[in-house]
Amino acid sequence: MKRVGFVGIGTMGLHMSRNLMKAGYELSIFNRTAEKMQPLVEEGAMPCASPAEVGQQSELVFTCVSDVPDVEEVTLGERGVARGIAPGGIIVDCSTSSPALARRMAEELKPRGIGVLDAPVSGGPEGARTGELSIMVGGEEEVFLRAKPVLEAIGKTILLIGPPGSGQLTKAINQIVGALHLEAVAEGIVLAKKAGIDPEKVIQALGGGAAQSWLLKMRGPQMLRGDFTPARFALGLHAKDLRLAMEAARQYGAKLELAEKVNEIFQALDQEGLGALDHSIMYLHAKRLNQLNS
Amino acid sequence: MKRVGFVGIGTMGLHMSRNLMKAGYELSIFNRTAEKMQPLVEEGAMPCASPAEVGQQSELVFTCVSDVPDVEEVTLGERGVARGIAPGGIIVDCSTSSPALARRMAEELKPRGIGVLDAPVSGGPEGARTGELSIMVGGEEEVFLRAKPVLEAIGKTILLIGPPGSGQLTKAINQIVGALHLEAVAEGIVLAKKAGIDPEKVIQALGGGAAQSWLLKMRGPQMLRGDFTPARFALGLHAKDLRLAMEAARQYGAKLELAEKVNEIFQALDQEGLGALDHSIMYLHAKRLNQLNS
Repeated sequence: MKRVGFVGIGTMGLHMSRNLMKAGYELSIFNRTAEKMQPLVEEGAMPCASPAEVGQQSELVFTCVSDVPDVEEVTLGERGVARGIAPGGIIVDCSTSSPALARRMAEELKPRGIGVLDAPVSGGPEGARTGELSIMVGGEEEVFLRAKPVLEAIGKTILLIGPPGSGQLTKAINQIVGALHLEAVAEGIVLAKKAGIDPEKVIQALGGGAAQSWLLKMRGPQMLRGDFTPARFALGLHAKDLRLAMEAARQYGAKLELAEKVNEIFQALDQEGLGALDHSIMYLHAKRLNQLNS
Repeated sequence: MKRVGFVGIGTMGLHMSRNLMKAGYELSIFNRTAEKMQPLVEEGAMPCASPAEVGQQSELVFTCVSDVPDVEEVTLGERGVARGIAPGGIIVDCSTSSPALARRMAEELKPRGIGVLDAPVSGGPEGARTGELSIMVGGEEEVFLRAKPVLEAIGKTILLIGPPGSGQLTKAINQIVGALHLEAVAEGIVLAKKAGIDPEKVIQALGGGAAQSWLLKMRGPQMLRGDFTPARFALGLHAKDLRLAMEAARQYGAKLELAEKVNEIFQALDQEGLGALDHSIMYLHAKRLNQLNS
């Protein structure tokens, strides 16, 4: 495979596209806001007028957009990738979307010889930049094996979890576990501040022991600095992911006591209009509850 | 400093003592259950009849016992380390104990020229064995600097957080953050099982992304295998630590919403008689709530 496409050049898409070009793939791209394509075009990517055109130019197309209706539009829609890509082609959806849509995409496109993988990623812009994302894949093994060499250009941990939808379910779990880790860090900082000990040193000490986590290390210092812009990962997106995750949980009859609580915290802050800030702003809830000024 | 003592040869103490001997210190030891000293004695440690005797033989004595009254007994008690150690000596308490006792020990022994550090550790038996513990220290800087070369034999992240008691407060935060990380993993596993995807692969995928944590990696697979004996860290001890932590939180007026919930889970399982099992057994709560059989 040589010709690869990328639809959705946000923070993640930009880094992932660069790593694909670095790995030698000829890249065709599309983004709704055309200006965002400019840096990649200057680096050699071919801009297209629609996702369908990206499909025409490519053997494998990544889609990486913000919400479920966008995923449907850029893949199955009137000007979607599926309208352009030839039989034998593969669509790899890296968006965080719904398991149900992932299953429907795979079913609808299979008869036309188009492979579909739901392949949401984790690792933040940091992991996207270094090409060390975790890619959690749902789909058929045959399609996965054909796509894997391309996935290796953007990720480090690349796992086929199971049939279509499994990638999205795994990402849902990832977002729940991540949100709870963030709340753990927020409550830890609150206690440090209330007790009058240096929260920065506390984060450093915890980072060397059994309570260490990626979010403690990466987002804990951001909470302390009040460093919420630009968003590494927007609160609004994490809130959307949690909404999807809790929908999936309800659908499968899973009772997740603490996840429900942390979901409420995210939804309330998002509804308050803080969605564009970094998700570490979720610390604001614990901070207010404890009447902390900094 | 050459002559070092160790009081409390449990799982952690055994590994830490070995690393001290490997680093060339002459080690005197005491343990209430004498047989537990045997392996170390065979490796060259000198067994003592009381903590006071360990104090007589040593310039610096570690204490590493299970609960607050034990800490008081082995340090300040009638046969405690402080009765034997000479002025200029240092007591390093690695137990997870109360900030208040840590402050009292430092105050009481300072006039006698004995330095005291509260220096609880994190990193589990795994970190104790490899000498890569995180050591969170409260105490005076002058005492810390004299003790640091010895601490380097057992830990990797060694931080003076602040005055006496700060180490214990940091450990309290560590135990809260850790318990919430465990609950995050438990709820993640529940959703994976309910949705019918492979929880082992989910843990692996999460471990490569932003939701990764030490407890996800080390305790997630244990939850799945039902591997709770022998305890790497006993549920009963984690429950005790959480009780102390929530006491400190109340004392400082910190409201920790999710920490309170997870504390309830730990206390209920401990009261049920599961305290001797590994703390990853806390998964049982989420499992029962979701009527999962495995």
